Amino acid sequence: MRFTQFLEASHKGMAVEVSGKLYGLAEHEEGFPGTLHDLLKAGPDALRDAHRRLSQARELDPATIRYLPPIERPGKIVCVGLNYADHTKESPYEQPTYPTFFPRFSTTLVGHDEPIIRPRVSEQLDYEGELAVIIGRGGRHITKARALEYVAGYSIFNEASVRDYQFKSPQWTIGKNFDATGAFGPTFVSADELPPGARGLSLTTRLNGKIEQQGNTADLIFDVAELIATLSEAVTLEPGDVIVSGTPAGIGWARRPMLFMKAGDLCTVEIEGLGMLSNPIAEEGPQA
Amino acid sequence: MRFTQFLEASHKGMAVEVSGKLYGLAEHEEGFPGTLHDLLKAGPDALRDAHRRLSQARELDPATIRYLPPIERPGKIVCVGLNYADHTKESPYEQPTYPTFFPRFSTTLVGHDEPIIRPRVSEQLDYEGELAVIIGRGGRHITKARALEYVAGYSIFNEASVRDYQFKSPQWTIGKNFDATGAFGPTFVSADELPPGARGLSLTTRLNGKIEQQGNTADLIFDVAELIATLSEAVTLEPGDVIVSGTPAGIGWARRPMLFMKAGDLCTVEIEGLGMLSNPIAEEGPQA
Repeated sequence: MRFTQFLEASHKGMAVEVSGKLYGLAEHEEGFPGTLHDLLKAGPDALRDAHRRLSQARELDPATIRYLPPIERPGKIVCVGLNYADHTKESPYEQPTYPTFFPRFSTTLVGHDEPIIRPRVSEQLDYEGELAVIIGRGGRHITKARALEYVAGYSIFNEASVRDYQFKSPQWTIGKNFDATGAFGPTFVSADELPPGARGLSLTTRLNGKIEQQGNTADLIFDVAELIATLSEAVTLEPGDVIVSGTPAGIGWARRPMLFMKAGDLCTVEIEGLGMLSNPIAEEGPQA
Repeated sequence: MRFTQFLEASHKGMAVEVSGKLYGLAEHEEGFPGTLHDLLKAGPDALRDAHRRLSQARELDPATIRYLPPIERPGKIVCVGLNYADHTKESPYEQPTYPTFFPRFSTTLVGHDEPIIRPRVSEQLDYEGELAVIIGRGGRHITKARALEYVAGYSIFNEASVRDYQFKSPQWTIGKNFDATGAFGPTFVSADELPPGARGLSLTTRLNGKIEQQGNTADLIFDVAELIATLSEAVTLEPGDVIVSGTPAGIGWARRPMLFMKAGDLCTVEIEGLGMLSNPIAEEGPQA
């Protein structure tokens, strides 16, 4: 099952992708099943039922919709740093033996095709293509053996980072939380459509068409099951929570000269089986 | 105005504190004005109106209620590390010239009188008494000069930290996010009842009655206005967002021998004008 959340003439809507076409309903139309977040809270039957219903809805014209993040306000967005060995080598850090979790707040999220905003205060806006994991079933103390039962599905994330702000203090929080720097989408793909743990998927980040990151989710140091088990040792996971699993080598900050994104650029992240997340870069407007 | 959120026979409710007594309504009673978070989203008139209405409601017996956090699921909880010079000196860090922001997820929150839970996996549960700032008006690029206009009020936070997990990777996230380690409350006090920026308030943390931290909010390195201005340079603040402003010296981890909290302990944080947040420590139960 492949779901897409959209805006159509300022109405929120839910669509399914079937054979490359989108079928869906806006929230004011009869039969609207709720948002993906609502459906995940309601459980797997609700998701399947919504898929069946939306498959019979009207076809959408992609030219008339805007894409929303699959989950607009996750209860938590937990990102993972230093989770590909080749990326850790290009960073100033040693490889930790425990996952390096850090947060994004939902105020950073933007959908597919929406601009990632370079803030006025920095020139150092960098890309990070990543696999996003969406939790379907909540829990705590989830064992690694059963962890994948808690995953509803997957999507794509561009964890755009403002590098100078990331390193202004010992915690990366602010460099990872500028408004409109967390691109997420376009499609939520249910876990049953992918290999277990979304393992072995090619991940490619391109800036203006040129490949800048080429990784594979098989190289995650802490894989999806291990991230869920480790995180839930401390924290209760809830339906709709998002884990952003880390980026492979090739970030712009590690280049010499450094490579950063600027207005007019186009950054895409493609993951095998999940599709492509594409975002133009725009400059922040004048201060209000 | 002083508001308290409570549970009474499993019904959520809102109360005001007037002359040391609580008057309130549960959510199923006529005239219930909504949660504090609802009221902050609705604006200052809604808050004043709710205060007037609740002042005329029935008196509550504190023995029959349980306390909820003033905001149960903030859009974001942004904590600040290394924000008192004496505390930075007892830490392994140099004093950063930019605030050290890190997150709590709302799954960590517990109310007044509810147990802070020492997880099974660690012996290193430490206290951190802190001033919490609750945002009333949302915005971005808020100037320091106008920042206090965006504050609705203040409360007390015990930012209990699991030290060994805090230092397992370069990011402190997990050690700060174990379930039921973020004690918050009991009372939301509107900003007009306190000095501007809640400056100059004595803060005292006691473990089993013994004073372990004795600070004053006048010693915040980045004061409330500066935290809001700096944070909003990057991030849109929203009504109900919470900034937990940092802890003064005296944490247990910096003692020799180290001092940690264990089941049966009672930890209190008292801030002048805000009251006292008190939490027993309990052990995590057996794994389900």
